[in-house]
Amino acid sequence: MTQPVAKRFPTPSIDRLPDDIRTRLLAVQEKSGFVPNVFLTLAYRPDEFRAFFAYHDALMDRDSGLTKAEREMIIVATSAANQCHYCVIAHGAILRVYAKNPLIADQVAVNYRKADLSPRQKAMLDFAVKVALHSHSINDADFPQLREHGFSDEDIWDIGAIAALFALSNRMANLINMRPNDEFYVLGRVPKS
Amino acid sequence: MTQPVAKRFPTPSIDRLPDDIRTRLLAVQEKSGFVPNVFLTLAYRPDEFRAFFAYHDALMDRDSGLTKAEREMIIVATSAANQCHYCVIAHGAILRVYAKNPLIADQVAVNYRKADLSPRQKAMLDFAVKVALHSHSINDADFPQLREHGFSDEDIWDIGAIAALFALSNRMANLINMRPNDEFYVLGRVPKS
Amino acid sequence: MTQPVAKRFPTPSIDRLPDDIRTRLLAVQEKSGFVPNVFLTLAYRPDEFRAFFAYHDALMDRDSGLTKAEREMIIVATSAANQCHYCVIAHGAILRVYAKNPLIADQVAVNYRKADLSPRQKAMLDFAVKVALHSHSINDADFPQLREHGFSDEDIWDIGAIAALFALSNRMANLINMRPNDEFYVLGRVPKS
Amino acid sequence: MTQPVAKRFPTPSIDRLPDDIRTRLLAVQEKSGFVPNVFLTLAYRPDEFRAFFAYHDALMDRDSGLTKAEREMIIVATSAANQCHYCVIAHGAILRVYAKNPLIADQVAVNYRKADLSPRQKAMLDFAVKVALHSHSINDADFPQLREHGFSDEDIWDIGAIAALFALSNRMANLINMRPNDEFYVLGRVPKS
Amino acid sequence: MTQPVAKRFPTPSIDRLPDDIRTRLLAVQEKSGFVPNVFLTLAYRPDEFRAFFAYHDALMDRDSGLTKAEREMIIVATSAANQCHYCVIAHGAILRVYAKNPLIADQVAVNYRKADLSPRQKAMLDFAVKVALHSHSINDADFPQLREHGFSDEDIWDIGAIAALFALSNRMANLINMRPNDEFYVLGRVPKS
Amino acid sequence: MTQPVAKRFPTPSIDRLPDDIRTRLLAVQEKSGFVPNVFLTLAYRPDEFRAFFAYHDALMDRDSGLTKAEREMIIVATSAANQCHYCVIAHGAILRVYAKNPLIADQVAVNYRKADLSPRQKAMLDFAVKVALHSHSINDADFPQLREHGFSDEDIWDIGAIAALFALSNRMANLINMRPNDEFYVLGRVPKS
Repeated sequence: MTQPVAKRFPTPSIDRLPDDIRTRLLAVQEKSGFVPNVFLTLAYRPDEFRAFFAYHDALMDRDSGLTKAEREMIIVATSAANQCHYCVIAHGAILRVYAKNPLIADQVAVNYRKADLSPRQKAMLDFAVKVALHSHSINDADFPQLREHGFSDEDIWDIGAIAALFALSNRMANLINMRPNDEFYVLGRVPKS
Repeated sequence: MTQPVAKRFPTPSIDRLPDDIRTRLLAVQEKSGFVPNVFLTLAYRPDEFRAFFAYHDALMDRDSGLTKAEREMIIVATSAANQCHYCVIAHGAILRVYAKNPLIADQVAVNYRKADLSPRQKAMLDFAVKVALHSHSINDADFPQLREHGFSDEDIWDIGAIAALFALSNRMANLINMRPNDEFYVLGRVPKS
Repeated sequence: MTQPVAKRFPTPSIDRLPDDIRTRLLAVQEKSGFVPNVFLTLAYRPDEFRAFFAYHDALMDRDSGLTKAEREMIIVATSAANQCHYCVIAHGAILRVYAKNPLIADQVAVNYRKADLSPRQKAMLDFAVKVALHSHSINDADFPQLREHGFSDEDIWDIGAIAALFALSNRMANLINMRPNDEFYVLGRVPKS
Repeated sequence: MTQPVAKRFPTPSIDRLPDDIRTRLLAVQEKSGFVPNVFLTLAYRPDEFRAFFAYHDALMDRDSGLTKAEREMIIVATSAANQCHYCVIAHGAILRVYAKNPLIADQVAVNYRKADLSPRQKAMLDFAVKVALHSHSINDADFPQLREHGFSDEDIWDIGAIAALFALSNRMANLINMRPNDEFYVLGRVPKS
Repeated sequence: MTQPVAKRFPTPSIDRLPDDIRTRLLAVQEKSGFVPNVFLTLAYRPDEFRAFFAYHDALMDRDSGLTKAEREMIIVATSAANQCHYCVIAHGAILRVYAKNPLIADQVAVNYRKADLSPRQKAMLDFAVKVALHSHSINDADFPQLREHGFSDEDIWDIGAIAALFALSNRMANLINMRPNDEFYVLGRVPKS
Repeated sequence: MTQPVAKRFPTPSIDRLPDDIRTRLLAVQEKSGFVPNVFLTLAYRPDEFRAFFAYHDALMDRDSGLTKAEREMIIVATSAANQCHYCVIAHGAILRVYAKNPLIADQVAVNYRKADLSPRQKAMLDFAVKVALHSHSINDADFPQLREHGFSDEDIWDIGAIAALFALSNRMANLINMRPNDEFYVLGRVPKS
């Protein structure tokens, strides 16, 4: 495959990026074996790149009542609702890795209501998709329902904020026509022996 | 009016905020005469606060082919499409100030298609609302249409990215039930003599 | 501003109108200080003008369990749902005046669910918006819910009928591209001292 | 069948109605052989009754570039879009009578795009349904398209105003749960010999 | 009327059809007095014809907890939701015949929620329309609600499967632009004496 | 994984099925190494099973201007629009196998507009999704557009009929809560060496 990583805006070459951004890209490459295209394409605007990943890290790396896999589920379910090619494929891969479950990402992407999830996780995704698609109708009655499933107010902020951040991310990926790296499609599909 | 600034999560007191955040709030207060509630409510999560405002500044303060008023139009039109109470009222005020036009914000909020805007500005808002509501259907044919109105590729990124950032912001404001300060409702309605 | 009051159909001059219509316009002008454009534009068809205002007066001037401000809330909320430029701006002004509240109209226009309203008023607007957007799904179960908030059957008719009348009015304003008078934007924003 | 004419509000008895309204009902009964339920149910509020029928007569009885059958087509198509039981059945009958065509009403009610209509009539209904469902998006480009089919500006007002009046009527019928008279179902189905 | 039975694909002549299909058409003609156009138009592809009618007969002729009239109600209600000209008109006729009720088909077609049906039948149609329009959201909670109305699991399969088969049928009729025979419009409107 | 193949209706055991159905299941098992759950779950109703697979074979095995991979694309794209868990996963696998492309199924499932497809294939899927979601608006103008991409009328029938058949299939799978076999998730992801 020699498809461009994104078709509508230039992709900067790694060696001409600001030091902090190049360092981050090389660290990711070291860890994953490739540079996810979201890093390359967003680096076209360094300040926006830095803000996006600062936001991402604040939510995805923090201590939370949500597991890392659950946070990825939110991304996959809401990105599927927005038909975001990049985010469903890339975060689907990450979800498989974190959940150590080769089936879960495709299930959540097609229809999370039928996925192999706990009632608590389905309630989490119901709320995340509401934030993604109908945030104007969020109301006070949503909160006790989530608390009944054991979510704290901090957890609810996390659910909502992740859905909100990927509302941004989905729109940027759709704007840029960002292409997921081929590596993501198979990542985590076969449990490592 | 003694309504709380937001009803679902705690609002930190200014004197207990991290130094950089408190400094920013006091600077805004100095300039505007009040602290917009978005600063108070998002400061509950300092790292997310910093990322949000870094993103905001990267887009709203940069040199751009879009005027400051046009960038606010994008925020008002897309926030109205998302029924975001805080963003329509607060950024409506800022739009009136930048555009020196007491009517424009309400017009854009109700139906930008009928507002006193140039065809170029309506094309800009058509695309911004597409990014806000139907980003999956953005296609290559959208770009030459925008270029015909004189928008460069950098401008198109700006239109899309502002719509994307406020997709995030609208969802956070709806999650938190953020309340616009009373001051915003009248700001810019009467041209200063 | 020298924008035309409506762009798609002729606007008759006041001195050539039938006597009864001219008399009504002059009375409104006497009271308000200006002639709202809805009077000028609808006067193009005198018989329809007379029927519209007869309907309007029958609902808006009658003794009702709904206050005058509440009736205007119905108009603003349903007209916002229909993105009717004229009705949101003009009746927003009247709402501010009747409610003696400079904030309420913008709140109801953006998202009445988050406005400073009583639960009874929110239930009233939930039903009004249902009539405006999904009247085919009105069912018997809606009625006891409204009665629990203290609405009589007469009140329910009033809510529904006002939403229905402005379903007509919004469509006519959108057809004609009716322009709200500049005066409406500021009316009632500053409490008179 | 002994179903009530409407289930949610009282239906006044004819002999207790104001003179002008009773006279109108008796005239209709004389002409049609029965009193259509819209007359009985709306007579519950005499002033609104008078305004509604004044509006109706102003549009439906005036000289117009639209035939009487075409005006009824607008009512049937937009009432079907609103799933209004009364208006589709009752005006479907009137359409059959005016058009002297036993098939046309059912065709227009199910999907006017596939009905036995001229391209001019389909363009008329496209616009009427736009007014009924998406009036906020009416724009200047709609007008030359209609003029190409031979519609004058007066005709366009008529199309829009009839769609607007029945936006009101459909909502009232759905609010009241108005029941069409059994007579309407067969009227005009068999050409008189 | 000399309209073609369908406008976009050829309609085979009866005498050139495979024997089994011609036999079925002649049997229907014998029984009904005319050949419904669905037989003529689908016969263009004999294998698909055979599969469709095998599916149809399996569902519509089987012993079921649903009466034949109830099964036709499902077809009329879901076909109206899909705006399928052929199916609403043709199966509306069959519904009138089976139900021995000249009003019911038009009522179900316009808005089954207001038709002269039992609560059980309305619950059946609520579920059928959910299958037709929002099948992704069918969930386990739908089943006990239907069982409370006396539907067995076999009945629920029947409701869902009929809605599913006519999801296919509606799309084929819309693809082909299939025209209902004129005979259907009046069938069953006058009770036979 | 020991999840049931479907949760809402019984799944018959293979040895108690009618001979013809058991033979078909064993043949599939022989070829694929497992029995796809759609065979097991639909076999609960033998007559409907036979009709469904007769329809399937008539469309999917016939000589056609559409390749086998293109026919599977139609299934994946329309099933994703209907959020059908079973069909997206199972037919996604078959699409990968026929297309010898490990990426294409996920791309088509998330957003076919951004998949690695030819303009002809995107036009095919635009029409298939229109049949799936908005078949009432199919019009004569759709046909020349498809012919410009080289589709014959027979091909157009095939596109529409496959979309129609899977409109049925998606609804049955959602009704039954049919579960895709685990084998489908990895099938065709790694090109055979």
